[in-house]
Amino acid sequence: MLEALRAGREIDRILMADEIEFGPQLSEVVVLADQQAIAVDAVPKRELDRISHTAKHQGVIAIVADPRYSSIEDMLHLAADRDEAPLLVVLDGIQDPHNFGAIARTANAAGAHGVIIPERRSASVSPGAIRASAGALEHVLVAREPNLGRTAKYLKQLGLRLVGLDAEAEFLHTEIDLTAPTAVVVGSEGQGISPQVRKECETLVSIPMFGEVASLNASVSAGVVLYEAVRQRTTKGAASS
Amino acid sequence: MLEALRAGREIDRILMADEIEFGPQLSEVVVLADQQAIAVDAVPKRELDRISHTAKHQGVIAIVADPRYSSIEDMLHLAADRDEAPLLVVLDGIQDPHNFGAIARTANAAGAHGVIIPERRSASVSPGAIRASAGALEHVLVAREPNLGRTAKYLKQLGLRLVGLDAEAEFLHTEIDLTAPTAVVVGSEGQGISPQVRKECETLVSIPMFGEVASLNASVSAGVVLYEAVRQRTTKGAASS
Repeated sequence: MLEALRAGREIDRILMADEIEFGPQLSEVVVLADQQAIAVDAVPKRELDRISHTAKHQGVIAIVADPRYSSIEDMLHLAADRDEAPLLVVLDGIQDPHNFGAIARTANAAGAHGVIIPERRSASVSPGAIRASAGALEHVLVAREPNLGRTAKYLKQLGLRLVGLDAEAEFLHTEIDLTAPTAVVVGSEGQGISPQVRKECETLVSIPMFGEVASLNASVSAGVVLYEAVRQRTTKGAASS
Repeated sequence: MLEALRAGREIDRILMADEIEFGPQLSEVVVLADQQAIAVDAVPKRELDRISHTAKHQGVIAIVADPRYSSIEDMLHLAADRDEAPLLVVLDGIQDPHNFGAIARTANAAGAHGVIIPERRSASVSPGAIRASAGALEHVLVAREPNLGRTAKYLKQLGLRLVGLDAEAEFLHTEIDLTAPTAVVVGSEGQGISPQVRKECETLVSIPMFGEVASLNASVSAGVVLYEAVRQRTTKGAASS
């Protein structure tokens, strides 16, 4: 860890056993952490055993950020840097890595600022998903959230409008304004959007269906709605609401 | 074959060896074929051996239409029955059954009148494609053409406007009128549209790309353009050209 700290590698937090004895190495850890504004927290030793999955931690461990994932704040900064209204995609239960990859690819192409997935019951940034994304997952910001209902509420507090895709919705995707800060919520093909996320959606929209099939592939749905947002955002006075 | 003819089952054409000896059964074949307006053609016997893949044809074979495929004429009749301007999809070299299935599903959902594929180097109506289409391939009309360049020329003669998707195109898909009779041409992800089809395209359009990836998944591209056609066709005065 001292090497990582000296090299300035990205460390989120340092945890230290509360009854540890200080020596010169540990002192340097604390000094370097302080210089790099990394929090150092004292915790019971058995908490360290639990987190490190081994007892060989010598009383101090570093929590390193998973470089595959970003935060919602990063996405909003990206939108602000580009001087654009945030356009995010929330994937509520997309388990197929091909669909996740295709949606990430589309999000990148459409200039969306990030994709939010839940920690559980979801495809993640895996080699298969990266391949299916044609490499887009190396570029598009992905945040992985422990509780998507709470995240949805948080997005609303940040001023985003949550627009959920739902086959039964009253409005068409072309009938609402997608130029404001927007998070498009896509549910799983089988289950749709989960109740705890759905109740945070300000608007539910449907894509019109004229044939015998009841739904589109999730990645096609996401593409249709994201490119309607692009159309509205790039065409003068084009919102057809 | 006599049974099939008596039952009125769908037969496209009857081929007969040119040196065959007529008897009562063969006479009935000719009479029934004539009543059902089925062409009977005389061909050399070794041509029959070749077509039937066996010599056990007794000098006469029936060519039965493949029930999985329709014709361009069927698609235009469907559009006329619905009192809609034809909206067709031409797939020039989509080999992945998942992409083909997803496009057929989207074509059905968007109310397109049919999907045209080439006989060679293309996914076909296979069990895998039907599964990927969520059953849409049981409903959407699919025509399988021997020469897609010739088919493209024929579509133009029928008054359809061929709109090809091309990343380098000058116009955006939202900038052209998709309310007229239209065939949307989608090329393969690797190769794009083949030269012999491209030269028949009246317009090439691109979907705007704002990120690092150079293209969308073919089924997402098709969905974005088909639903732009739906938007233009269902929204009053919405063409943003």
